[in-house]
Amino acid sequence: MRIDIVTAFPDLVRGPLEYSIIRRARERGQVDIRVHDLRDYTTDRHRQIDDYPYGGGGGMVLKPEPIFRCIEAIQEEARRAGRPIDEVIYLTPDGQVFNQELANRLSLCQHLVLLAGHYKGVDQRVRDALVTMELSIGDYVLSGGELPALVVVDAIVRLIPGVLGDAESALTDSFQDGLLDAPVYTRPAVFRGMAVPEVLRSGDHERIAAWREEQRLLKTRQRRPDLLAQTESSMTHDE
Amino acid sequence: MRIDIVTAFPDLVRGPLEYSIIRRARERGQVDIRVHDLRDYTTDRHRQIDDYPYGGGGGMVLKPEPIFRCIEAIQEEARRAGRPIDEVIYLTPDGQVFNQELANRLSLCQHLVLLAGHYKGVDQRVRDALVTMELSIGDYVLSGGELPALVVVDAIVRLIPGVLGDAESALTDSFQDGLLDAPVYTRPAVFRGMAVPEVLRSGDHERIAAWREEQRLLKTRQRRPDLLAQTESSMTHDE
Repeated sequence: MRIDIVTAFPDLVRGPLEYSIIRRARERGQVDIRVHDLRDYTTDRHRQIDDYPYGGGGGMVLKPEPIFRCIEAIQEEARRAGRPIDEVIYLTPDGQVFNQELANRLSLCQHLVLLAGHYKGVDQRVRDALVTMELSIGDYVLSGGELPALVVVDAIVRLIPGVLGDAESALTDSFQDGLLDAPVYTRPAVFRGMAVPEVLRSGDHERIAAWREEQRLLKTRQRRPDLLAQTESSMTHDE
Repeated sequence: MRIDIVTAFPDLVRGPLEYSIIRRARERGQVDIRVHDLRDYTTDRHRQIDDYPYGGGGGMVLKPEPIFRCIEAIQEEARRAGRPIDEVIYLTPDGQVFNQELANRLSLCQHLVLLAGHYKGVDQRVRDALVTMELSIGDYVLSGGELPALVVVDAIVRLIPGVLGDAESALTDSFQDGLLDAPVYTRPAVFRGMAVPEVLRSGDHERIAAWREEQRLLKTRQRRPDLLAQTESSMTHDE
Protein backbone atom coordinates (compact mmCIF):
# COMPACT_ATOMS: atom_id res chain seq x y z
CA MET A 1 0.00 0.00 0.00
CA ARG A 2 1.10 3.54 -0.69
CA ILE A 3 0.13 6.36 1.68
CA ASP A 4 0.89 10.06 1.06
CA ILE A 5 0.46 12.45 3.97
CA VAL A 6 0.12 16.16 3.14
CA THR A 7 0.82 18.47 6.09
CA ALA A 8 2.11 21.80 7.34
CA PHE A 9 4.07 19.93 10.07
CA PRO A 10 6.01 17.18 8.27
CA ASP A 11 8.47 16.54 11.12
CA LEU A 12 5.67 16.06 13.64
CA VAL A 13 4.21 13.39 11.34
CA ARG A 14 7.52 11.70 10.41
CA GLY A 15 8.58 10.99 14.00
CA PRO A 16 5.88 8.53 15.07
CA LEU A 17 6.15 6.67 11.73
CA GLU A 18 9.57 5.41 12.92
CA TYR A 19 8.21 3.16 15.68
CA SER A 20 6.76 -0.23 16.37
CA ILE A 21 4.48 -1.87 13.83
CA ILE A 22 4.47 0.99 11.30
CA ARG A 23 8.26 1.02 11.25
CA ARG A 24 8.40 -2.74 10.69
CA ALA A 25 5.79 -2.64 7.91
CA ARG A 26 7.76 0.13 6.16
CA GLU A 27 11.06 -1.74 6.49
CA ARG A 28 9.49 -4.85 5.01
CA GLY A 29 8.03 -2.86 2.11
CA GLN A 30 4.44 -3.66 3.12
CA VAL A 31 3.60 0.04 3.14
CA ASP A 32 5.30 2.98 1.44
CA ILE A 33 4.56 6.19 3.35
CA ARG A 34 5.59 9.60 1.97
CA VAL A 35 5.21 12.81 3.95
CA HIS A 36 4.81 16.06 1.96
CA ASP A 37 5.59 19.51 3.35
CA LEU A 38 2.97 22.01 2.12
CA ARG A 39 5.65 24.73 2.17
CA ASP A 40 7.44 22.92 -0.66
CA TYR A 41 4.42 23.69 -2.85
CA THR A 42 4.35 27.45 -2.32
CA THR A 43 5.69 29.84 -4.94
CA ASP A 44 6.19 33.03 -2.92
CA ARG A 45 9.33 34.13 -1.15
CA HIS A 46 7.77 33.72 2.32
CA ARG A 47 6.47 30.21 1.57
CA GLN A 48 3.12 31.26 3.00
CA ILE A 49 0.62 28.43 3.47
CA ASP A 50 -2.11 30.17 5.49
CA ASP A 51 -4.07 33.40 5.39
CA TYR A 52 -6.89 35.20 7.22
CA PRO A 53 -10.44 33.86 6.87
CA TYR A 54 -12.98 35.73 4.75
CA GLY A 55 -15.73 37.16 6.94
CA GLY A 56 -13.47 37.60 9.97
CA GLY A 57 -13.31 35.52 13.12
CA GLY A 58 -10.45 33.71 14.82
CA GLY A 59 -7.84 31.39 13.41
CA MET A 60 -6.00 31.06 10.11
CA VAL A 61 -7.07 29.05 7.05
CA LEU A 62 -4.77 26.88 4.91
CA LYS A 63 -4.61 28.43 1.43
CA PRO A 64 -5.92 26.46 -1.56
CA GLU A 65 -2.97 26.86 -3.99
CA PRO A 66 -0.24 24.85 -2.18
CA ILE A 67 -2.68 22.04 -1.40
CA PHE A 68 -3.91 21.81 -5.01
CA ARG A 69 -0.32 21.83 -6.29
CA CYS A 70 0.76 19.12 -3.86
CA ILE A 71 -2.17 16.75 -4.34
CA GLU A 72 -2.17 17.22 -8.12
CA ALA A 73 1.53 16.31 -8.18
CA ILE A 74 0.73 13.12 -6.25
CA GLN A 75 -2.17 12.38 -8.62
CA GLU A 76 0.04 12.95 -11.67
CA GLU A 77 2.72 10.61 -10.33
CA ALA A 78 0.09 7.97 -9.55
CA ARG A 79 -1.36 8.24 -13.07
CA ARG A 80 2.06 7.73 -14.64
CA ALA A 81 2.71 4.73 -12.38
CA GLY A 82 -0.68 3.27 -13.28
CA ARG A 83 -1.49 3.13 -9.59
CA PRO A 84 -4.78 4.96 -9.11
CA ILE A 85 -5.55 6.80 -5.86
CA ASP A 86 -8.41 5.20 -3.95
CA GLU A 87 -9.28 8.10 -1.68
CA VAL A 88 -8.11 11.63 -0.86
CA ILE A 89 -8.98 11.81 2.83
CA TYR A 90 -9.27 15.07 4.76
CA LEU A 91 -8.98 14.72 8.54
CA THR A 92 -11.50 17.05 10.19
CA PRO A 93 -13.74 16.99 13.28
CA ASP A 94 -16.82 17.40 11.06
CA GLY A 95 -16.02 14.33 8.93
CA GLN A 96 -17.51 10.84 9.03
CA VAL A 97 -16.55 9.19 12.34
CA PHE A 98 -13.67 6.75 11.80
CA ASN A 99 -14.17 3.24 13.20
CA GLN A 100 -12.82 -0.29 12.89
CA GLU A 101 -15.13 -1.13 9.99
CA LEU A 102 -13.73 1.80 8.00
CA ALA A 103 -10.20 0.78 9.01
CA ASN A 104 -10.84 -2.71 7.64
CA ARG A 105 -12.18 -1.28 4.39
CA LEU A 106 -9.33 1.22 3.91
CA SER A 107 -6.71 -1.47 4.67
CA LEU A 108 -7.68 -3.09 1.35
CA CYS A 109 -6.86 0.05 -0.69
CA GLN A 110 -3.79 0.45 -2.91
CA HIS A 111 -3.15 4.16 -2.51
CA LEU A 112 -4.47 6.68 0.01
CA VAL A 113 -3.74 10.40 0.31
CA LEU A 114 -4.25 11.90 3.77
CA LEU A 115 -4.57 15.68 4.11
CA ALA A 116 -4.02 17.11 7.60
CA GLY A 117 -5.60 20.48 8.30
CA HIS A 118 -4.30 22.88 10.91
CA TYR A 119 -5.51 26.09 12.56
CA LYS A 120 -9.14 26.64 11.44
CA GLY A 121 -8.82 24.08 8.61
CA VAL A 122 -8.39 24.18 4.84
CA ASP A 123 -10.13 26.47 2.35
CA GLN A 124 -13.54 24.93 1.55
CA ARG A 125 -12.69 24.74 -2.19
CA VAL A 126 -10.08 22.07 -1.41
CA ARG A 127 -12.81 19.99 0.20
CA ASP A 128 -15.21 20.62 -2.68
CA ALA A 129 -12.80 19.82 -5.52
CA LEU A 130 -10.07 17.45 -4.29
CA VAL A 131 -11.23 15.55 -1.22
CA THR A 132 -13.18 12.31 -1.71
CA MET A 133 -13.64 11.33 1.96
CA GLU A 134 -13.70 13.31 5.20
CA LEU A 135 -12.84 11.49 8.42
CA SER A 136 -13.02 12.46 12.09
CA ILE A 137 -11.23 10.30 14.65
CA GLY A 138 -13.66 11.39 17.38
CA ASP A 139 -15.91 14.13 18.74
CA TYR A 140 -13.22 16.47 20.00
CA VAL A 141 -11.16 19.31 18.55
CA LEU A 142 -7.38 19.13 18.12
CA SER A 143 -4.74 21.63 17.01
CA GLY A 144 -4.52 19.94 13.63
CA GLY A 145 -5.03 16.83 11.55
CA GLU A 146 -1.50 15.49 12.07
CA LEU A 147 -2.25 13.20 15.03
CA PRO A 148 -5.53 12.07 13.38
CA ALA A 149 -3.60 11.18 10.18
CA LEU A 150 -1.17 9.11 12.28
CA VAL A 151 -4.07 7.43 14.09
CA VAL A 152 -5.70 6.45 10.78
CA VAL A 153 -2.36 5.20 9.39
CA ASP A 154 -1.73 3.10 12.52
CA ALA A 155 -5.23 1.59 12.52
CA ILE A 156 -4.97 0.72 8.80
CA VAL A 157 -1.37 -0.47 8.51
CA ARG A 158 -1.70 -3.12 11.23
CA LEU A 159 -4.60 -4.63 9.23
CA ILE A 160 -2.65 -4.98 5.96
CA PRO A 161 -2.32 -8.73 5.39
CA GLY A 162 1.06 -9.97 6.65
CA VAL A 163 1.88 -6.96 8.83
CA LEU A 164 0.91 -8.59 12.12
CA GLY A 165 2.29 -12.05 12.77
CA ASP A 166 -0.09 -14.93 13.55
CA ALA A 167 0.77 -14.56 17.23
CA GLU A 168 -0.33 -10.91 17.17
CA SER A 169 -3.49 -11.59 15.19
CA ALA A 170 -5.86 -8.64 15.16
CA LEU A 171 -8.89 -10.91 15.10
CA THR A 172 -9.41 -10.90 18.87
CA ASP A 173 -9.03 -7.12 19.18
CA SER A 174 -11.82 -5.01 20.56
CA PHE A 175 -14.46 -4.16 17.89
CA GLN A 176 -13.50 -6.84 15.34
CA ASP A 177 -16.66 -8.73 16.27
CA GLY A 178 -18.48 -5.91 18.00
CA LEU A 179 -17.24 -6.85 21.49
CA LEU A 180 -14.63 -5.32 23.79
CA ASP A 181 -11.54 -7.37 24.63
CA ALA A 182 -11.30 -9.57 27.76
CA PRO A 183 -8.96 -8.71 30.70
CA VAL A 184 -5.34 -9.82 30.23
CA TYR A 185 -2.84 -10.97 32.87
CA THR A 186 0.83 -11.90 32.89
CA ARG A 187 3.28 -13.03 35.58
CA PRO A 188 3.52 -12.97 38.57
CA ALA A 189 0.54 -15.21 39.39
CA VAL A 190 0.01 -13.23 42.60
CA PHE A 191 1.01 -9.57 42.79
CA ARG A 192 0.44 -7.68 46.07
CA GLY A 193 -2.23 -10.15 47.05
CA MET A 194 -4.05 -9.88 43.70
CA ALA A 195 -4.21 -13.27 41.98
CA VAL A 196 -4.61 -14.05 38.30
CA PRO A 197 -8.04 -15.76 37.82
CA GLU A 198 -7.63 -19.49 38.37
CA VAL A 199 -9.19 -20.40 35.02
CA LEU A 200 -6.39 -18.64 33.08
CA ARG A 201 -3.83 -20.81 34.88
CA SER A 202 -5.80 -24.04 34.39
CA GLY A 203 -4.39 -24.95 30.98
CA ASP A 204 -7.95 -25.95 30.01
CA HIS A 205 -8.34 -24.18 26.67
CA GLU A 206 -12.08 -24.70 26.40
CA ARG A 207 -12.73 -23.21 29.84
CA ILE A 208 -10.37 -20.32 29.05
CA ALA A 209 -12.16 -19.56 25.78
CA ALA A 210 -15.55 -19.70 27.53
CA TRP A 211 -14.34 -17.39 30.33
CA ARG A 212 -12.94 -14.89 27.86
CA GLU A 213 -16.14 -14.84 25.83
CA GLU A 214 -18.19 -14.32 28.98
CA GLN A 215 -15.88 -11.49 30.13
CA ARG A 216 -16.11 -9.80 26.74
CA LEU A 217 -19.91 -9.89 26.76
CA LEU A 218 -20.05 -8.72 30.37
CA LYS A 219 -17.68 -5.80 29.77
CA THR A 220 -19.43 -4.75 26.57
CA ARG A 221 -22.84 -4.88 28.26
CA GLN A 222 -21.56 -2.77 31.19
CA ARG A 223 -19.50 -0.24 29.26
CA ARG A 224 -20.81 -0.07 25.70
CA PRO A 225 -24.36 -1.42 25.38
CA ASP A 226 -24.54 0.64 22.15
CA LEU A 227 -22.05 -1.77 20.51
CA LEU A 228 -24.24 -4.78 21.39
CA ALA A 229 -27.30 -3.02 19.96
CA GLN A 230 -25.40 -2.36 16.70
CA THR A 231 -24.24 -5.98 16.45
CA GLU A 232 -27.73 -7.33 17.06
CA SER A 233 -29.27 -4.94 14.54
CA SER A 234 -26.66 -5.80 11.87
CA MET A 235 -27.26 -9.53 12.51
CA THR A 236 -30.97 -8.97 11.97
CA HIS A 237 -30.21 -7.18 8.70
CA ASP A 238 -28.07 -10.08 7.50
CA GLU A 239 -30.86 -12.59 7.93
CA MET B 1 -1.32 21.93 34.76
CA ARG B 2 1.03 18.99 35.22
CA ILE B 3 0.74 15.95 32.92
CA ASP B 4 2.80 12.75 33.34
CA ILE B 5 2.80 10.27 30.45
CA VAL B 6 3.88 6.69 31.23
CA THR B 7 4.89 4.70 28.16
CA ALA B 8 7.06 1.97 26.64
CA PHE B 9 7.85 4.33 23.70
CA PRO B 10 8.97 7.62 25.27
CA ASP B 11 10.63 8.99 22.13
CA LEU B 12 7.49 8.43 20.05
CA VAL B 13 5.56 10.49 22.60
CA ARG B 14 8.19 13.23 23.10
CA GLY B 15 8.42 14.18 19.40
CA PRO B 16 4.92 15.53 18.80
CA LEU B 17 5.00 17.47 22.10
CA GLU B 18 7.57 19.78 20.47
CA TYR B 19 5.15 21.36 17.99
CA SER B 20 2.54 24.04 17.61
CA ILE B 21 0.22 24.87 20.49
CA ILE B 22 1.55 22.24 22.93
CA ARG B 23 5.09 23.51 22.44
CA ARG B 24 4.02 27.09 23.05
CA ALA B 25 2.02 26.18 26.17
CA ARG B 26 5.05 24.30 27.56
CA GLU B 27 7.42 27.17 26.81
CA ARG B 28 5.11 29.61 28.58
CA GLY B 29 4.85 27.30 31.60
CA GLN B 30 1.10 26.80 31.15
CA VAL B 31 1.60 23.04 31.14
CA ASP B 32 4.42 20.90 32.51
CA ILE B 33 4.56 17.59 30.64
CA ARG B 34 6.87 14.75 31.78
CA VAL B 35 7.34 11.56 29.79
CA HIS B 36 8.36 8.43 31.73
CA ASP B 37 10.07 5.42 30.15
CA LEU B 38 8.67 2.21 31.68
CA ARG B 39 12.09 0.56 31.20
CA ASP B 40 13.53 2.97 33.78
CA TYR B 41 11.30 1.27 36.36
CA THR B 42 12.46 -2.32 35.75
CA THR B 43 14.91 -4.02 38.11
CA ASP B 44 16.17 -6.90 35.95
CA ARG B 45 19.21 -6.91 33.71
CA HIS B 46 17.12 -7.14 30.52
CA ARG B 47 14.81 -4.28 31.53
CA GLN B 48 11.86 -6.44 30.59
CA ILE B 49 8.50 -4.65 30.56
CA ASP B 50 6.27 -7.28 28.91
CA ASP B 51 5.58 -11.00 29.22
CA TYR B 52 3.31 -13.69 27.76
CA PRO B 53 -0.40 -13.64 28.65
CA TYR B 54 -1.81 -16.22 31.06
CA GLY B 55 -4.18 -18.56 29.27
CA GLY B 56 -2.38 -18.29 25.93
CA GLY B 57 -3.39 -16.36 22.83
CA GLY B 58 -1.59 -13.73 20.78
CA GLY B 59 0.26 -10.61 21.86
CA MET B 60 2.31 -9.59 24.87
CA VAL B 61 1.06 -7.98 28.10
CA LEU B 62 2.75 -5.09 29.93
CA LYS B 63 3.94 -6.39 33.33
CA PRO B 64 2.48 -4.91 36.50
CA GLU B 65 5.69 -4.22 38.49
CA PRO B 66 7.29 -1.44 36.36
CA ILE B 67 3.93 0.34 35.99
CA PHE B 68 3.23 0.23 39.74
CA ARG B 69 6.76 1.48 40.48
CA CYS B 70 6.49 4.33 37.99
CA ILE B 71 3.02 5.56 38.95
CA GLU B 72 3.72 5.22 42.68
CA ALA B 73 6.86 7.33 42.25
CA ILE B 74 4.76 10.01 40.52
CA GLN B 75 2.16 9.78 43.30
CA GLU B 76 4.83 10.09 45.99
CA GLU B 77 6.34 13.16 44.35
CA ALA B 78 2.87 14.72 44.00
CA ARG B 79 2.12 14.06 47.68
CA ARG B 80 5.34 15.77 48.77
CA ALA B 81 4.61 18.73 46.51
CA GLY B 82 1.09 18.96 47.93
CA ARG B 83 -0.25 18.73 44.37
CA PRO B 84 -2.77 15.86 44.34
CA ILE B 85 -3.30 13.79 41.19
CA ASP B 86 -6.78 14.27 39.75
CA GLU B 87 -6.92 11.18 37.55
CA VAL B 88 -4.74 8.25 36.49
CA ILE B 89 -6.01 7.68 32.96
CA TYR B 90 -5.45 4.46 31.01
CA LEU B 91 -5.83 4.79 27.22
CA THR B 92 -7.62 1.71 25.92
CA PRO B 93 -10.15 0.92 23.17
CA ASP B 94 -12.55 -0.47 25.81
CA GLY B 95 -12.57 2.73 27.87
CA GLN B 96 -15.16 5.51 28.06
CA VAL B 97 -15.30 7.30 24.70
CA PHE B 98 -13.39 10.60 24.87
CA ASN B 99 -15.24 13.68 23.66
CA GLN B 100 -15.16 17.47 23.87
CA GLU B 101 -17.19 17.54 27.08
CA LEU B 102 -14.58 15.30 28.78
CA ALA B 103 -11.80 17.47 27.29
CA ASN B 104 -13.40 20.55 28.83
CA ARG B 105 -13.69 18.83 32.20
CA LEU B 106 -10.12 17.48 32.20
CA SER B 107 -8.71 20.88 31.13
CA LEU B 108 -9.70 22.16 34.61
CA CYS B 109 -7.57 19.54 36.41
CA GLN B 110 -4.26 20.29 38.17
CA HIS B 111 -2.46 17.00 37.59
CA LEU B 112 -3.17 14.11 35.23
CA VAL B 113 -1.27 10.87 34.74
CA LEU B 114 -1.74 9.19 31.33
CA LEU B 115 -0.78 5.52 30.96
CA ALA B 116 -0.28 4.27 27.40
CA GLY B 117 -0.70 0.55 26.86
CA HIS B 118 0.98 -1.35 24.03
CA TYR B 119 0.71 -4.81 22.50
CA LYS B 120 -2.32 -6.54 24.12
CA GLY B 121 -2.47 -3.94 26.92
CA VAL B 122 -1.52 -3.79 30.60
CA ASP B 123 -1.99 -6.47 33.25
CA GLN B 124 -5.56 -6.17 34.58
CA ARG B 125 -4.31 -5.60 38.14
CA VAL B 126 -2.90 -2.22 37.07
CA ARG B 127 -6.39 -1.24 35.92
CA ASP B 128 -8.00 -2.56 39.11
CA ALA B 129 -5.62 -0.93 41.59
CA LEU B 130 -4.07 2.19 40.02
CA VAL B 131 -6.23 3.51 37.21
CA THR B 132 -9.10 5.89 38.04
CA MET B 133 -10.37 6.57 34.51
CA GLU B 134 -10.22 4.59 31.24
CA LEU B 135 -10.51 6.52 27.98
CA SER B 136 -10.86 5.44 24.36
CA ILE B 137 -10.31 8.03 21.62
CA GLY B 138 -12.59 6.09 19.24
CA ASP B 139 -13.94 2.72 18.15
CA TYR B 140 -10.81 1.40 16.46
CA VAL B 141 -7.72 -0.52 17.52
CA LEU B 142 -4.21 0.97 17.40
CA SER B 143 -0.74 -0.45 18.08
CA GLY B 144 -0.63 1.27 21.44
CA GLY B 145 -1.88 4.07 23.63
CA GLU B 146 0.87 6.53 22.66
CA LEU B 147 -1.03 8.36 19.89
CA PRO B 148 -4.23 8.35 22.02
CA ALA B 149 -2.29 9.91 24.93
CA LEU B 150 -1.03 12.63 22.55
CA VAL B 151 -4.56 13.19 21.22
CA VAL B 152 -5.94 13.64 24.76
CA VAL B 153 -3.07 15.99 25.68
CA ASP B 154 -3.64 18.08 22.55
CA ALA B 155 -7.41 18.31 23.10
CA ILE B 156 -6.95 19.32 26.75
CA VAL B 157 -3.97 21.68 26.55
CA ARG B 158 -5.57 23.97 23.98
CA LEU B 159 -8.48 24.46 26.41
CA ILE B 160 -6.34 25.52 29.38
CA PRO B 161 -7.23 29.18 30.00
CA GLY B 162 -4.71 31.47 28.30
CA VAL B 163 -3.21 28.88 25.96
CA LEU B 164 -5.13 29.98 22.88
CA GLY B 165 -5.15 33.71 22.13
CA ASP B 166 -8.46 35.55 21.76
CA ALA B 167 -8.08 35.40 17.99
CA GLU B 168 -7.83 31.60 18.12
CA SER B 169 -10.72 31.22 20.56
CA ALA B 170 -11.88 27.62 20.86
CA LEU B 171 -15.47 28.71 21.42
CA THR B 172 -16.50 28.43 17.77
CA ASP B 173 -14.87 25.01 17.31
CA SER B 174 -16.95 22.04 16.29
CA PHE B 175 -18.73 20.40 19.27
CA GLN B 176 -18.39 23.30 21.74
CA ASP B 177 -22.09 23.98 21.32
CA GLY B 178 -23.08 20.65 19.78
CA LEU B 179 -22.74 21.89 16.18
CA LEU B 180 -20.12 21.30 13.49
CA ASP B 181 -18.08 24.25 12.27
CA ALA B 182 -19.04 26.32 9.20
CA PRO B 183 -17.00 26.25 5.94
CA VAL B 184 -13.95 28.55 5.91
CA TYR B 185 -12.39 30.40 2.99
CA THR B 186 -9.32 32.53 2.46
CA ARG B 187 -7.81 34.38 -0.53
CA PRO B 188 -8.02 34.34 -3.50
CA ALA B 189 -11.66 35.39 -3.83
CA VAL B 190 -11.93 33.30 -6.99
CA PHE B 191 -9.78 30.20 -7.43
CA ARG B 192 -10.12 28.14 -10.63
CA GLY B 193 -13.60 29.52 -11.15
CA MET B 194 -14.70 28.73 -7.59
CA ALA B 195 -15.77 31.88 -5.76
CA VAL B 196 -15.88 32.57 -2.06
CA PRO B 197 -19.57 33.02 -1.05
CA GLU B 198 -20.57 36.65 -1.54
CA VAL B 199 -21.85 37.05 2.02
CA LEU B 200 -18.36 36.40 3.49
CA ARG B 201 -16.99 39.26 1.39
CA SER B 202 -19.86 41.63 2.24
CA GLY B 203 -18.37 43.05 5.44
CA ASP B 204 -21.87 42.78 6.96
CA HIS B 205 -21.14 41.06 10.26
CA GLU B 206 -24.76 40.30 11.07
CA ARG B 207 -25.35 38.60 7.73
CA ILE B 208 -22.05 36.70 8.09
CA ALA B 209 -22.99 35.46 11.56
CA ALA B 210 -26.43 34.38 10.32
CA TRP B 211 -24.92 32.57 7.31
CA ARG B 212 -22.40 30.74 9.50
CA GLU B 213 -25.07 29.67 11.98
CA GLU B 214 -27.24 28.40 9.10
CA GLN B 215 -24.29 26.50 7.57
CA ARG B 216 -23.44 24.91 10.91
CA LEU B 217 -27.00 23.70 11.44
CA LEU B 218 -27.25 22.47 7.85
CA LYS B 219 -23.96 20.54 8.01
CA THR B 220 -24.77 19.04 11.40
CA ARG B 221 -28.22 17.95 10.22
CA GLN B 222 -26.73 16.35 7.08
CA ARG B 223 -23.66 14.72 8.63
CA ARG B 224 -24.32 14.20 12.33
CA PRO B 225 -28.03 14.25 13.20
CA ASP B 226 -27.04 12.33 16.35
CA LEU B 227 -25.31 15.48 17.70
CA LEU B 228 -28.50 17.51 17.22
CA ALA B 229 -30.54 14.86 19.02
CA GLN B 230 -28.06 14.97 21.95
CA THR B 231 -28.20 18.77 22.14
CA GLU B 232 -31.99 18.80 22.09
CA SER B 233 -32.24 16.09 24.72
CA SER B 234 -29.74 17.87 27.03
CA MET B 235 -31.69 21.11 26.54
CA THR B 236 -34.86 19.31 27.57
CA HIS B 237 -33.08 17.99 30.67
CA ASP B 238 -31.91 21.46 31.62
CA GLU B 239 -35.43 22.83 31.66
